[in-house]
Amino acid sequence: MSKEQIQYMIEQPTKSRCIGIVGLGLIGGSLGLELQSRGWEVHGVVHRSATLKRAKERKLANVISTNLEILNDCQIIFIALPLDKIINPSNHLINSLPKSAVITDVGSVKSPVVKTWQNLHPRFVGSHPMAGSAEEGVNAGELGLFNQRPWVATPNSKTDIEALEIIHQIAISIGSEWITTDANKHDEAVALISHLPVFISAALLKTLGNLESKSINQLAKSLASSGFSDTSRVGGGNPNLGKAMAQNNTKEILKALNSYRKNIEDLERKIQLSSWEQLQIDLEFTKQLRSDFIKGNQSN
Amino acid sequence: MSKEQIQYMIEQPTKSRCIGIVGLGLIGGSLGLELQSRGWEVHGVVHRSATLKRAKERKLANVISTNLEILNDCQIIFIALPLDKIINPSNHLINSLPKSAVITDVGSVKSPVVKTWQNLHPRFVGSHPMAGSAEEGVNAGELGLFNQRPWVATPNSKTDIEALEIIHQIAISIGSEWITTDANKHDEAVALISHLPVFISAALLKTLGNLESKSINQLAKSLASSGFSDTSRVGGGNPNLGKAMAQNNTKEILKALNSYRKNIEDLERKIQLSSWEQLQIDLEFTKQLRSDFIKGNQSN
Repeated sequence: MSKEQIQYMIEQPTKSRCIGIVGLGLIGGSLGLELQSRGWEVHGVVHRSATLKRAKERKLANVISTNLEILNDCQIIFIALPLDKIINPSNHLINSLPKSAVITDVGSVKSPVVKTWQNLHPRFVGSHPMAGSAEEGVNAGELGLFNQRPWVATPNSKTDIEALEIIHQIAISIGSEWITTDANKHDEAVALISHLPVFISAALLKTLGNLESKSINQLAKSLASSGFSDTSRVGGGNPNLGKAMAQNNTKEILKALNSYRKNIEDLERKIQLSSWEQLQIDLEFTKQLRSDFIKGNQSN
Repeated sequence: MSKEQIQYMIEQPTKSRCIGIVGLGLIGGSLGLELQSRGWEVHGVVHRSATLKRAKERKLANVISTNLEILNDCQIIFIALPLDKIINPSNHLINSLPKSAVITDVGSVKSPVVKTWQNLHPRFVGSHPMAGSAEEGVNAGELGLFNQRPWVATPNSKTDIEALEIIHQIAISIGSEWITTDANKHDEAVALISHLPVFISAALLKTLGNLESKSINQLAKSLASSGFSDTSRVGGGNPNLGKAMAQNNTKEILKALNSYRKNIEDLERKIQLSSWEQLQIDLEFTKQLRSDFIKGNQSN
């Protein structure tokens, strides 16, 4: 297909065949709602029959089933499973994916996903949206989740260029901002800005949780304000996702944690030595850094 | 005054004399707007003539001046200066406070404030609101800042009970939730839930800021999402406030940082040793902790 034909397909979804989504949790469910609202016929696969009922009530896809056969006619399929299930897919799933379909995933670590899937399917494109919420599961999907959020793809020399362009067009059609990069660089960058925050925020919560004094714990609870709430948010998120990040991006997360711990030690040293001028310089630096990093971000 | 007389005074502010506010930054300016909206005559003192103009434009008080004499007739005065200036007040300020007035402050560390001020003024009450925003200075004050936020007082055996009750009634009249506690316990609790987050969040920003690779830095910037934004917010806040916290709550902050660093080391060890089950248990624990801590908090 030419670029124009791809654009035509994205703009006229009713003339195309269906889009499949495997898994209707936060990302899969949001994709289902988003793609339907843009006229696509969406087929969604769920794992458990308990989930099936709720997914149907929420109309997360036009056709919803626990049977992978509903993917047979899909020309684009999103693997929207938890990260460890993307990296270790069942044979049943692999065999259910039409060879002609374009396949992508939503996993937040890319090197192991790309390594696995490029051997499994000729039209696989590694990608994922940088979007999230505190919610998870079949009740979490929502319209607008991807709006103005990055959608990152990590193509390499083996990637089918037409398949990449199809995912590109779909991503921008649902409001995402398209970014392509190398899978290893991606994993290093997300270790720093997405995975590291989870662990440093979890360590903050554990510091409170390990307090011996019940009265201080109670007082801390009653005084906790928006600063604590914001800094602890991602450390109180989905435990399976945190574990999957650590399991699958181990090297980069350890590198980030090591560098982070040195910065904590440095701050401790400055406070111990009453190096107030140096501390002030550090905090001027971090204030500037944050405004550079968050520029134009709505949630700042 | 009896409790009833104090309540009458709070409910009929026009029949009382004025409330003074020294400093019209985020907290002082918000107090000025809030108290005026409830019918009080507010006299606000600013330090610099440049600030004076803007404070008048924003109508942060009814009378605004750089001259401390406008406090002469005030029966309640809030010292809404930066923490280090509350702890080291000028003689001029001290001499300008009527001996009959009730004095309170807004400093987020209480032991050194109470120690200093109880020797300076017979009707001093140590207190402060747990409220903040990313803004600072004369443009920052806003209505509603204290609504449903804690206002903490740290009375001791020397505190004037009538003065304490007056601050209590004012605090609840502007929507705050009143808490009293011991000053040392307060400083330990805020080190954990308010000051520690500033330093761990600053260390996150420094980890990004110290990156050697410009391409990873750029990529991290373009991928930074709400998780990074939330976790880095307080580390990008007012550098003077962060320094003042460290200078004036040193012992408790170092204790909190030490305990926090051990939790970081523990997470690093679990990831290094592939102790995934243990990591999962930790993350289940922190998820539960956060929902306990944030219960009912709007900003979760």
